[in-house]
Amino acid sequence: MPGKAQNEDSLLRKFAESSRSSRSRTATPSVSLGIGDDAALFRPRPGYQTILTCDWFLEGTHFLRRKHPPDAVGWKCLARALSDVAAMGGAPRCFLLSLALPQTHTARWLELFLAGLRRASHKFHCVLAGGDTTRRSDILINITVLGEIASRSAILRSGAREGDIIYVSGRLGEAELGLRIMQRNKGTASKKNSLTRKHLYPEPRLALGQWLVKNGLASAMMDLSDGLSSDLPRLCAASAVGAQLEMAKIPQIRATDVALKHGHNPIQLALHGGDDYELLFTIPPHKAKLLPKTFRGVALIPIGKITRNRDLLVLEGSGHARQLVPHGWDPFRKKL
Amino acid sequence: MPGKAQNEDSLLRKFAESSRSSRSRTATPSVSLGIGDDAALFRPRPGYQTILTCDWFLEGTHFLRRKHPPDAVGWKCLARALSDVAAMGGAPRCFLLSLALPQTHTARWLELFLAGLRRASHKFHCVLAGGDTTRRSDILINITVLGEIASRSAILRSGAREGDIIYVSGRLGEAELGLRIMQRNKGTASKKNSLTRKHLYPEPRLALGQWLVKNGLASAMMDLSDGLSSDLPRLCAASAVGAQLEMAKIPQIRATDVALKHGHNPIQLALHGGDDYELLFTIPPHKAKLLPKTFRGVALIPIGKITRNRDLLVLEGSGHARQLVPHGWDPFRKKL
Repeated sequence: MPGKAQNEDSLLRKFAESSRSSRSRTATPSVSLGIGDDAALFRPRPGYQTILTCDWFLEGTHFLRRKHPPDAVGWKCLARALSDVAAMGGAPRCFLLSLALPQTHTARWLELFLAGLRRASHKFHCVLAGGDTTRRSDILINITVLGEIASRSAILRSGAREGDIIYVSGRLGEAELGLRIMQRNKGTASKKNSLTRKHLYPEPRLALGQWLVKNGLASAMMDLSDGLSSDLPRLCAASAVGAQLEMAKIPQIRATDVALKHGHNPIQLALHGGDDYELLFTIPPHKAKLLPKTFRGVALIPIGKITRNRDLLVLEGSGHARQLVPHGWDPFRKKL
Repeated sequence: MPGKAQNEDSLLRKFAESSRSSRSRTATPSVSLGIGDDAALFRPRPGYQTILTCDWFLEGTHFLRRKHPPDAVGWKCLARALSDVAAMGGAPRCFLLSLALPQTHTARWLELFLAGLRRASHKFHCVLAGGDTTRRSDILINITVLGEIASRSAILRSGAREGDIIYVSGRLGEAELGLRIMQRNKGTASKKNSLTRKHLYPEPRLALGQWLVKNGLASAMMDLSDGLSSDLPRLCAASAVGAQLEMAKIPQIRATDVALKHGHNPIQLALHGGDDYELLFTIPPHKAKLLPKTFRGVALIPIGKITRNRDLLVLEGSGHARQLVPHGWDPFRKKL
């Protein structure tokens, strides 16, 4: 069709076909009709609810054309939407990709972007079901992910109760420091630095979320996208509770890491750094002994407890308690 | 939360709550968890497939800030996504709204936008289930709609067969002429002109699509978003067939309409005009007598037939046949 964003359409169709056929080798395909009709058709699994989430990923707001490698843009736009499925304890099924691109980015950039997207799609078993493409001077991405979870087993933000122990997975602040290292260095981000990699290629904690559901351990859960100091208050507000964190327990970047030479403060990064996509969850105290110390190599660290009093406090080593003040991700502050 | 796009979040939450509670008076709510958690939860109906579609609606590409009333932007962004559900013969259930707005548009503009969106949401029984909001200098909208249809009854583009009769609903070219009238006039579009209204407030043909499914009449279907000359080739390509249209039968704007004084050609508008959101469908000849001449006040007009030969021809009054050349919607041509 003259003028139609043909290159994208044919590339996305190939992408969808390849991802559907590779999935169908391992499971009944849940997407029975993909790109090329007015809409896609998804076959829900009986006894399951559908998890729905959508996420902007916009040039200048969430990534920079000159800094972020195109395959990282492809990986990350899907990975961060999948993190919302992980936060409910669900399994991803399929996604829709809305993509607006300048004419200059429809060849090499698009190929590399789709390669990164395909890696995430394969790794996390989430197939492309449809989308919409158009021309635009900025690169605009919107991702909708559909997941599934057995009815009435999703872990919500609202289930935390007084006395529950607060856990996080992984180590906090790494992605933020990776971003700062990337900003300091010239040119496109290096993939060799493990901190920069954590910023560019986050790993949604899908297996952990599903394991917590299967074992009925977590009372509340969410993912850490905007930083602990912004996200914990959301969990507490949804549960109508407060929290008391122990600063010394919050898993932070090791002080020996080379990047710390540049004067970054590990505890500030751990409290306020965004983009970690780790899980924040609460466990009733009598179930805490059932939780392993690590899950598939990722540490599960108790960092405090839920309180009836709705204050959000951080206990410092000295015994002094101070208020937790949100300083995380903020759409007004040009973060990048 | 300081800096969080708070106004949107609280407005969207109110919106979602009001639309869920109004829906639950008439039907079992299919959205069991909406805005405020990491993701929404949707309860699929047993024996049904889920219809998935997403659509960009971008300032400068799909609408103009100074021309399009905010409530029309709200109505249309949802209505055109719903048209894809109509084109499968399905019923809408819920939608996700991704919205990027300048700070200047978070008060009055946003309220009017949400009022238009709410009208469409109520009228077409499609509740807000979730979304994502951020700050941006341009107004960016992306809508994902979930619909449902009984398994194996969706009408695809690929089912047209030789001899099937081609139909369209309504009259073609009205929305395009409405757009041109709006562009010619100064200031924000007038809602008094019925052609401008068709451009601003399209009506997805949901009831017609569902009726065609229920009565097993249509062999193929799609919606007309880019214009007949661009969309019919897509249906024919998906079905591996051709088509022969009779120009005299294509329902066009009446020559008496005031706007025609300005030299617009009704048949060119009907062939190439975009944004009509009417349905294009094919009916096997032996079923054609079961189709009424109008459905709920909307004309259903036979305009030609499907051919085995893959040419796309238009028969003129003189008996001369010419090739149908696509001149419809095109993301390269700045349409607005």
